[in-house]
Amino acid sequence: MTATLYVCTTCRAGEIIEEDMPRPGALLHDALTQAGAPEGVAIVGTECLSACSQGATVALAEPGKWTYVYGRMSAENADDILAGAAAYAATADGLVPWRERPVIFRKQSLARIPPLNMPLEAKT
Amino acid sequence: MTATLYVCTTCRAGEIIEEDMPRPGALLHDALTQAGAPEGVAIVGTECLSACSQGATVALAEPGKWTYVYGRMSAENADDILAGAAAYAATADGLVPWRERPVIFRKQSLARIPPLNMPLEAKT
Repeated sequence: MTATLYVCTTCRAGEIIEEDMPRPGALLHDALTQAGAPEGVAIVGTECLSACSQGATVALAEPGKWTYVYGRMSAENADDILAGAAAYAATADGLVPWRERPVIFRKQSLARIPPLNMPLEAKT
Repeated sequence: MTATLYVCTTCRAGEIIEEDMPRPGALLHDALTQAGAPEGVAIVGTECLSACSQGATVALAEPGKWTYVYGRMSAENADDILAGAAAYAATADGLVPWRERPVIFRKQSLARIPPLNMPLEAKT
């Protein structure tokens, strides 16, 4: 199974961007793909993750795991994001121990969503 | 197939809450379950959706559909949330036409995440 690291490529990160200038989300996507996906992770650019005021945005998802969304990311965070994605991919449920998460993941969570296959009683 | 409406029951919605007082997230969960889930929707309380500064928070998810997370919700929004959940449940992909979304869903999106089964080329 492969974890997916979604990267919003259209994110303006709250900036006013000239039409022919690269967007912060696209720059982040470039930095991530150039650094290279760790084992068990696929990097997938998406057109909008609807977190525009908190961009640039990434999300981590995999069947059977919690989904996480992180905001206010930039190309300078690429190494931390990839380390966090590798740690996520190595878990069974997406729950990386707090101290093993990159600081940007601890501080810049926008949301998490339970796995769809989780028994209802385990979520409440 | 059933859409899941996750409701963060521990959300303090940015307020300082006495330990024995009901939390805004729990009040929202109560209002939603009392109003009753529309056809095709299951209401599921969760302990934390990690969007604490933007709570109370709800999320809509279903296998094969886009996942949506909405913030700054309160018990007063229960009817709108249930209407939006019913519209989501009626779609094939989770994409409700913009004008058919409740205003609180248009204005208070925290994030959306693509369906895990979407072909990669369709996301970029």
